[in-house]
Amino acid sequence: MDLFRLLNVNELAVALSRMNMFPYFEVAHYIVSVMSLREQPGALEVSRRSPLACWFSAMLHCFGGAVLSGVIMAEAPVEPLANSTNILLASLMWYVVFYCPQDMVYSCATILPIRLVLTAMKEVTRTWKVLGGVTQASKKYKDSLFVMIAVGWTKGAGGGLMSNFEQLVRGIWKPETNELLKMTYPTKVTLIGSVLFSLQQCQYLPMNRPQLMLLYTTFIVINKTRMMLLGSSFSLLIWIESTLYEVLFARPLTCSPLTNQTHSHITSSCSSSEAKSTSCVKNGSPLPQEECKVSEKDKKKTE
Amino acid sequence: MDLFRLLNVNELAVALSRMNMFPYFEVAHYIVSVMSLREQPGALEVSRRSPLACWFSAMLHCFGGAVLSGVIMAEAPVEPLANSTNILLASLMWYVVFYCPQDMVYSCATILPIRLVLTAMKEVTRTWKVLGGVTQASKKYKDSLFVMIAVGWTKGAGGGLMSNFEQLVRGIWKPETNELLKMTYPTKVTLIGSVLFSLQQCQYLPMNRPQLMLLYTTFIVINKTRMMLLGSSFSLLIWIESTLYEVLFARPLTCSPLTNQTHSHITSSCSSSEAKSTSCVKNGSPLPQEECKVSEKDKKKTE
Amino acid sequence: MDLFRLLNVNELAVALSRMNMFPYFEVAHYIVSVMSLREQPGALEVSRRSPLACWFSAMLHCFGGAVLSGVIMAEAPVEPLANSTNILLASLMWYVVFYCPQDMVYSCATILPIRLVLTAMKEVTRTWKVLGGVTQASKKYKDSLFVMIAVGWTKGAGGGLMSNFEQLVRGIWKPETNELLKMTYPTKVTLIGSVLFSLQQCQYLPMNRPQLMLLYTTFIVINKTRMMLLGSSFSLLIWIESTLYEVLFARPLTCSPLTNQTHSHITSSCSSSEAKSTSCVKNGSPLPQEECKVSEKDKKKTE
Repeated sequence: MDLFRLLNVNELAVALSRMNMFPYFEVAHYIVSVMSLREQPGALEVSRRSPLACWFSAMLHCFGGAVLSGVIMAEAPVEPLANSTNILLASLMWYVVFYCPQDMVYSCATILPIRLVLTAMKEVTRTWKVLGGVTQASKKYKDSLFVMIAVGWTKGAGGGLMSNFEQLVRGIWKPETNELLKMTYPTKVTLIGSVLFSLQQCQYLPMNRPQLMLLYTTFIVINKTRMMLLGSSFSLLIWIESTLYEVLFARPLTCSPLTNQTHSHITSSCSSSEAKSTSCVKNGSPLPQEECKVSEKDKKKTE
Repeated sequence: MDLFRLLNVNELAVALSRMNMFPYFEVAHYIVSVMSLREQPGALEVSRRSPLACWFSAMLHCFGGAVLSGVIMAEAPVEPLANSTNILLASLMWYVVFYCPQDMVYSCATILPIRLVLTAMKEVTRTWKVLGGVTQASKKYKDSLFVMIAVGWTKGAGGGLMSNFEQLVRGIWKPETNELLKMTYPTKVTLIGSVLFSLQQCQYLPMNRPQLMLLYTTFIVINKTRMMLLGSSFSLLIWIESTLYEVLFARPLTCSPLTNQTHSHITSSCSSSEAKSTSCVKNGSPLPQEECKVSEKDKKKTE
Repeated sequence: MDLFRLLNVNELAVALSRMNMFPYFEVAHYIVSVMSLREQPGALEVSRRSPLACWFSAMLHCFGGAVLSGVIMAEAPVEPLANSTNILLASLMWYVVFYCPQDMVYSCATILPIRLVLTAMKEVTRTWKVLGGVTQASKKYKDSLFVMIAVGWTKGAGGGLMSNFEQLVRGIWKPETNELLKMTYPTKVTLIGSVLFSLQQCQYLPMNRPQLMLLYTTFIVINKTRMMLLGSSFSLLIWIESTLYEVLFARPLTCSPLTNQTHSHITSSCSSSEAKSTSCVKNGSPLPQEECKVSEKDKKKTE
């Protein structure tokens, strides 16, 4: 009975790993990406004022991973344009989501069950993208774990990682935040996936690729669905994260008196910046951003 | 008689297509590019405060197309520096336009007839640049129309497309606008040229390359001269553009009531952003930017 | 006696040129780079709020030269990650400088004699980096002096040249200044080094490579030590710089009346921008930035 179950899971894993993303999953990815663009403040306005900027922004949402991983691997960022079919499909989805008469497509796609299915399908493409990035990197840089993680991550979460510049296309500039300063859920889960697939690629994991693909895909699909329905994230992840933070990075923000006196003539910025920042990290809590941002703004004004 | 005329035009086209841009047309391009830099607010100030930043900015004006098309094709952006003759010529033009005693060169170049000739010669180089970009792309990506259009466009209008970053070199940052959000005339006409030459390259146009070069060059030279003398743009283009806009992209900016109720717990940004933006696109007119910008600024202030 | 001394110097130069930067000098470079990051305003705060952004920023400080020269040479910017040993070493230094219990490592490293030794060792690595960049460029672009200078410069002073984007990682955006507008000492001295090594590579200098390496290394180490102890820069350099500036670039900022009248209908920005800027360069002094910045801000406010 157990053997039978094992066989089944393995067969399922292999079948999944051979599944083709084109066209259904790709299309779901385009629709969900364009919808997430449309739901950003000011995006609809831009779509009316400048369709070209809106289209370019939508393409960065759909193909951001390929563009960014191209940039860091010194491969042509214009490459996604070479696949005419995908570009035309993505452009069509962009058009119907933004400009369909009566707004029919967007209205339908936002009905919860449809949106759930589309989002789940989009999450499935994430596995393929991360894996694609890891494989691409491993061809050029054999055994280089860090490069694989970086390329897999940018391929899977490129749109998010370059969001500052994607917003710039639409005339919005928010330098005070980015995906590294405050990771969103997709970026975080893609990083985890990229680490796992890179470890598997270097054969540090006791598991073959189809099994890992099945495991990771199941995890991200279930977790995302759960988040959309309940509005809360996977609690285990948050617990691991905050434990790691507490052990490794939580330190008080005070200069030792020794330091202040010894090199006060070399650098005077230390004490002042710390005087300013101690109020921000009062009790060692990781993310007191509201207060910090305020002081940041005050700083800019007084400068 | 008609045959004779045809022969003549064809011969003229072939002769034009064999014309060498170096050195006269190149020099005109450098002078006009540097002059357009000098006429930007704050540029003269920067030229006195930091000649190096001014020089770098001038080189981006002169070779921006080569740099940007290099970036998107994964070819070295430092490549233009390898052509010492061109760099030295461009640097010389930069120097005489900005620092000539008594400001003689700039004063002469701004006399209308001279400026007209220089600008017309600069426009001629545009044809060669766009064509160069299209050919370069077609070598690497055969039959890929979109890549050809993109590379031809960036090669011909690179300076404009990267203007945000060119301004950053001079310490100016205007995120609220860029060439995609609000295309200027040169960017627009280069895009048209790039589309035409790419179609010709893929043999979708009933015309050979020298003929298209003659046609396009004549069009941009006449149009630019007309604009400089009369201060108005080619009305046919504007008519085509606004018709296309009306048919394809002019949609009212209201959420259907259905949508608002169904997914209000998933995204609440839609309704608020639209409430804000309805005032901007009141009567479906394409470019009511003044009002929009004001609301954008208000938004920032209240944030 | 003289011959003996010459032999000695030559032997010393050859011995120096064969010296291996790994691991001691590299580690000193990492420590000093991470310390300079830590001493920037707001960096400590970021290290507590987002260790990942802080780590990425530290890597840009340590490997910025490799990343930036990779970008301009169209080689993979992710390449530094492929050298796992260096990345792990740099990450370790980042960790101990920012998060060591009791802040011991940073406190020790800021004791003046230790800091002097570390900084001197870091300066030695500059020679190797500049030389590495020049050699790398000369392989791809033979005899192209400008490319060699550019690549050597970016390799040696990459972290500084891309400081705007390094700050962006930490959520700070200061568009009004950059290394080209206002060069800092390291950027300036690296540019000089890059010019010298490029000239030597093209055999325009009456000196072989080990000799130049010894000369340049001695110069930058002594000068940096002098600056740290006395807080003043090498006066000869400043004198050369201001003389060059006076001869080449110091011009009054007034439009000739001729110009204003002739082309007033083509460009109206010239007169206004100059009216604004004359107050900034009152007496031809090169760097009256305080006043200029104020007017820049006023301009932005009124826009």
